[in-house]
Amino acid sequence: MKVKTAVFRKEHFNAAHRLNNPNWSSERNKEVFGKCNNPNYHGHNYELVVKVVGYPDEETGYLMDMKILSDLIKEKILDRFDHMNLNLDTQEFKNLNPTAENIVKVIYDLLRTDIIADLDLKVTLYETERNYVEYPA
Amino acid sequence: MKVKTAVFRKEHFNAAHRLNNPNWSSERNKEVFGKCNNPNYHGHNYELVVKVVGYPDEETGYLMDMKILSDLIKEKILDRFDHMNLNLDTQEFKNLNPTAENIVKVIYDLLRTDIIADLDLKVTLYETERNYVEYPA
Amino acid sequence: MKVKTAVFRKEHFNAAHRLNNPNWSSERNKEVFGKCNNPNYHGHNYELVVKVVGYPDEETGYLMDMKILSDLIKEKILDRFDHMNLNLDTQEFKNLNPTAENIVKVIYDLLRTDIIADLDLKVTLYETERNYVEYPA
Amino acid sequence: MKVKTAVFRKEHFNAAHRLNNPNWSSERNKEVFGKCNNPNYHGHNYELVVKVVGYPDEETGYLMDMKILSDLIKEKILDRFDHMNLNLDTQEFKNLNPTAENIVKVIYDLLRTDIIADLDLKVTLYETERNYVEYPA
Amino acid sequence: MKVKTAVFRKEHFNAAHRLNNPNWSSERNKEVFGKCNNPNYHGHNYELVVKVVGYPDEETGYLMDMKILSDLIKEKILDRFDHMNLNLDTQEFKNLNPTAENIVKVIYDLLRTDIIADLDLKVTLYETERNYVEYPA
Amino acid sequence: MKVKTAVFRKEHFNAAHRLNNPNWSSERNKEVFGKCNNPNYHGHNYELVVKVVGYPDEETGYLMDMKILSDLIKEKILDRFDHMNLNLDTQEFKNLNPTAENIVKVIYDLLRTDIIADLDLKVTLYETERNYVEYPA
Repeated sequence: MKVKTAVFRKEHFNAAHRLNNPNWSSERNKEVFGKCNNPNYHGHNYELVVKVVGYPDEETGYLMDMKILSDLIKEKILDRFDHMNLNLDTQEFKNLNPTAENIVKVIYDLLRTDIIADLDLKVTLYETERNYVEYPA
Repeated sequence: MKVKTAVFRKEHFNAAHRLNNPNWSSERNKEVFGKCNNPNYHGHNYELVVKVVGYPDEETGYLMDMKILSDLIKEKILDRFDHMNLNLDTQEFKNLNPTAENIVKVIYDLLRTDIIADLDLKVTLYETERNYVEYPA
Repeated sequence: MKVKTAVFRKEHFNAAHRLNNPNWSSERNKEVFGKCNNPNYHGHNYELVVKVVGYPDEETGYLMDMKILSDLIKEKILDRFDHMNLNLDTQEFKNLNPTAENIVKVIYDLLRTDIIADLDLKVTLYETERNYVEYPA
Repeated sequence: MKVKTAVFRKEHFNAAHRLNNPNWSSERNKEVFGKCNNPNYHGHNYELVVKVVGYPDEETGYLMDMKILSDLIKEKILDRFDHMNLNLDTQEFKNLNPTAENIVKVIYDLLRTDIIADLDLKVTLYETERNYVEYPA
Repeated sequence: MKVKTAVFRKEHFNAAHRLNNPNWSSERNKEVFGKCNNPNYHGHNYELVVKVVGYPDEETGYLMDMKILSDLIKEKILDRFDHMNLNLDTQEFKNLNPTAENIVKVIYDLLRTDIIADLDLKVTLYETERNYVEYPA
Repeated sequence: MKVKTAVFRKEHFNAAHRLNNPNWSSERNKEVFGKCNNPNYHGHNYELVVKVVGYPDEETGYLMDMKILSDLIKEKILDRFDHMNLNLDTQEFKNLNPTAENIVKVIYDLLRTDIIADLDLKVTLYETERNYVEYPA
């Protein structure tokens, strides 16, 4: 019986954001999101771990070439989000609150289409060293 | 089909403990637990990671407010164990050997009752950077 | 001969910023500061290490109570900069480009007045894990 | 209902290797493996995490004595691979390309026979801080 | 002109301690040392960095063999303090408050006599990831 | 009075090496360098920290553009040593034992000529997380 292996690639990007629901009053936003609602934005060094699961190729011994995975993350995620204001500079968060939970799902969806369906995918996003999220759980 | 997300919060506490089974002779305790059986105690900087799994709320984009989770960990775990002698100062380890395996289960049980049943919970406890445990596995 | 000891306290804060010299054209700013000049800001998890040097007190064995140092950093630095936009929300960087070099000197000056002159002070600021600064060198 | 716990032990070793498929031309090897194909070898500080899953013993509170697990890893893995050239000095990689995916499976197989079948096993291997693998996934 | 090089070796030990000045009332001890004064002790994973400065030997390219330095730290420091209660189990802290400032100086003095006088020595001790000390500063 | 600031840039490379003095017998080499003398080489993930000290420019707020420093390290150090066998593939260690002490001095000398004399330079090289060196001390 064949058993699956996982490979992980870690990358990072820096971005500004604020948490805000545009359908709410500013009072309610302030109450729910606290200092994360600062209208002038704050920011993070996001650390990103992409996990790909499948069967390594017998000839190469690679499940997936880490250079290809790293280049894909750069093209699809870092070039889009690094040194950006997530709320103002990106299409993805124009109408979506950039909580870590929402960002990690957006990253997953952006990568999923470029990784063949035979391979499973999971994304972990560190907003700080002490707060992080994973999708799918 | 909805897919679950996980959020993680990392906290830490410092405590003293010794490993000892009161039903055994001190010879057997010393044999099994070695220098961890030192009757005068030793201690650790415990790093604690709490993972909560569920569906983020669509309005807030939060699975669980990290501030609420952090406050809960503080109230239920850190206020109880930080700067304590686990064997002498806590109810939980009066009659339970404070191995990492037992501590992580106690922490899980203390948190489980305060997190709604819809959310899954997992706890990881680092006794040192090189020794750690997870419950449930 | 008495020999000095150093104590270090590490804290962190998250902030947004952009690098920009208001006396320059936007072309020159873009050329010098690249993507760090993004007009919509980006952000960082700043890690801050404060080093205090002197002679420990013989009665307490403390050079400086870490709780007092931590509270001082919180009051003078974190409450001012955490979850802020350095360019827009702070007095200190209204007319000063918030490079890591300038931020670390501002932090030093803010702390220096509250630490007695007998104690030497040095501040290290991590903008990312791979870029950091120290003042004085 | 009994619930399983996991214990983790982290160890490390340093080794040289090159990626190469002896059935291929040197051109194809160079094309597929790039600088990892350097005929004179390069090397890594491998970080290894061994996860063992089962039910802790009620008398000891141990799932598995970390000292025994650490000694086992030393005997079966570190003594075999530490400060070695994986391609030249080991039986395991004489005819197997030492990619991280292949190394982690070899380590799993070496350990599996010495850990009782009631306990599940998983191995994570960090080739660098940013590239790592897990088996089984 | 010859220029000096530094070599560093990092080790760790786990210990219990409490902060207490036996010449003071328990009220004053509690007031000054807070929860660190817990009479039942608490503990830490101490990380220790030993820095040795001098001129590397031209024949070996070594300033000091790291294995010898590691063995010396083990013999003089870890065997003495690891898994010990600093207040109860050690001669050094019978009458000396085991603050990080005092521990780092004790470690320096214990190592100094075994390292030849031509080599400078500095010790850094991490009580937690966020609190650490250095001697001499 | 103007006060100097320091900026730090961290990079990494992977390389193979062996410790060996060609003027000695293989017995003496084995005795002095132990398993680091393995004739088939072993390897490391070297982490490199370059510290540059001087006065930040008042117009830019930069002591040195981190992008320029990073590019310089890439060109002078990483392109030369990354994924190389230090003993076989490099001019610098053809006749120089690649101990961490010798590598760090070679890196310093390679960088020194490209950084203007007004700026002080210091290099730290991590061979492992627990063994590292600094030049000049």
